[in-house]
Amino acid sequence: MIIIPGLNSQNLAKEVAKLTNSELARVESKQFPDGEIYVRVHNELKGKDAVIIQTQNTQNDSIVEAILMCEALRDEGVKSITLVAPYLAYARQDKKFNAGEPISIKALAKVYSNICDRIITINPHETHIKEFFDIPFIYGDAIPKLAEHAGVKLVKPLVLSPDKGAVALAKRAAEELNCECDYLEKTRISPTEIKIAPKNLDVSGKDVLIVDDIISTGGTMATAISMLIEQGARTVIAACVHPVLIGDALNKLHLGGASEIVGTNTYPSEVSKVCVSTIIADILNGE
Amino acid sequence: MIIIPGLNSQNLAKEVAKLTNSELARVESKQFPDGEIYVRVHNELKGKDAVIIQTQNTQNDSIVEAILMCEALRDEGVKSITLVAPYLAYARQDKKFNAGEPISIKALAKVYSNICDRIITINPHETHIKEFFDIPFIYGDAIPKLAEHAGVKLVKPLVLSPDKGAVALAKRAAEELNCECDYLEKTRISPTEIKIAPKNLDVSGKDVLIVDDIISTGGTMATAISMLIEQGARTVIAACVHPVLIGDALNKLHLGGASEIVGTNTYPSEVSKVCVSTIIADILNGE
Repeated sequence: MIIIPGLNSQNLAKEVAKLTNSELARVESKQFPDGEIYVRVHNELKGKDAVIIQTQNTQNDSIVEAILMCEALRDEGVKSITLVAPYLAYARQDKKFNAGEPISIKALAKVYSNICDRIITINPHETHIKEFFDIPFIYGDAIPKLAEHAGVKLVKPLVLSPDKGAVALAKRAAEELNCECDYLEKTRISPTEIKIAPKNLDVSGKDVLIVDDIISTGGTMATAISMLIEQGARTVIAACVHPVLIGDALNKLHLGGASEIVGTNTYPSEVSKVCVSTIIADILNGE
Repeated sequence: MIIIPGLNSQNLAKEVAKLTNSELARVESKQFPDGEIYVRVHNELKGKDAVIIQTQNTQNDSIVEAILMCEALRDEGVKSITLVAPYLAYARQDKKFNAGEPISIKALAKVYSNICDRIITINPHETHIKEFFDIPFIYGDAIPKLAEHAGVKLVKPLVLSPDKGAVALAKRAAEELNCECDYLEKTRISPTEIKIAPKNLDVSGKDVLIVDDIISTGGTMATAISMLIEQGARTVIAACVHPVLIGDALNKLHLGGASEIVGTNTYPSEVSKVCVSTIIADILNGE
């Protein structure tokens, strides 16, 4: 197995190479001033199982880099190509919400199915996107690692998901921390006011961990945090797998009163403290 | 036929729709703050011949936009998809120059061949890239239009190409202007000095038009212009199909002494004065 690091996942690729006891390729990657990408793999590749590790936080740039990488690898005669995209761009456009729009991740799944043999990702927004791929689509789960990271700081832990849809994530984190879980519910209490509170449980005196797959703009999460503190929560940690954190999201969360914001390195950011290398290595090692 | 404008080619698409007497689609296109693109076509599409007009000056963004557009169109049941990419990104990576690198345009040709039925471009850097496509690959020639634009300003015209490889472009421009043509040759006259001059002709007293397919950094072109002026050229116009003009390219050309720099709207820029709409319309009209 040879690990091929993409422009965005240099450290992650190095870690995975160590954990899988694999060769780490020397890759020349650059982006020209006009925006075009150039890649070149300096290793002998013939007959090898190649694993590209390239998270897609630079969206269209990462997608095209993957397309170019796969072509280079095929042309050098690799035996197989696994594309590891810990954050999979466009995974949230997974349904046709309106006539005339594409299911973006389906369009890209077709592209990937033509250029590689297997795809690995971490916590895709919805798992049904698997159906769009004509190749094996494998996903790892970073929630236990996030819970473990936050757990050491929580004396009286309680896990919440931001909505009913994500309650499965909260359940997995709660199992890890051996505590209760619930989901947040938004209720309108007047034409101008809303209340966000756990559906069933009381947060008073608790150390709350809110978990989600993605924090994007952070708006609702910030409001939820400040309301939980009003309801008596002692501390609130906001955790997510993919800290997309658009614009001033991190600032909003801090202002909301979060005692910590934590994500994984599927999406490089200031809070990407949890490394997903072991999750990827376990999948690659067939465990 | 229905014309689908891409984010970069709104005006061009409108012109082509007029010239081909076609319906112009109302397309909602936007780029989210994280870099993902959203497209939605608001027209009835079933059974129609769709023509996407989307130049690729935003490289990876334009490529992914094309992938998403094609998926949306297919899903709405169009009869056929023509992708018009007046500037085709990555067309210059058309050979394997080194082991371990991809032929980038071949990688993308495979993608396009899977998602659309025909591709139209203007003056690709090398025409042999046609072989990489499994679908019809048609290209128009903007050189006569560029020559026509420059011609009105040239009293004693002479056309030059920047090197021997591009002399065919100079020939086509010279035919249009009914004048002589030649190519520029670089000779080293000392370890630190080079001379750039036409291979056979004398530029003294002439109005020179230099034509190329792309002006990228503009460095060699700027040096050539100043040397031609030293050699007695009265005026020098620098013309290209695709004015990529990276960084301070335009400034270099002005400082070099160019009396005008002109390109086409295949690559939107300050000097994109020549419109390629009639060339595209002629191809679409089957002329």
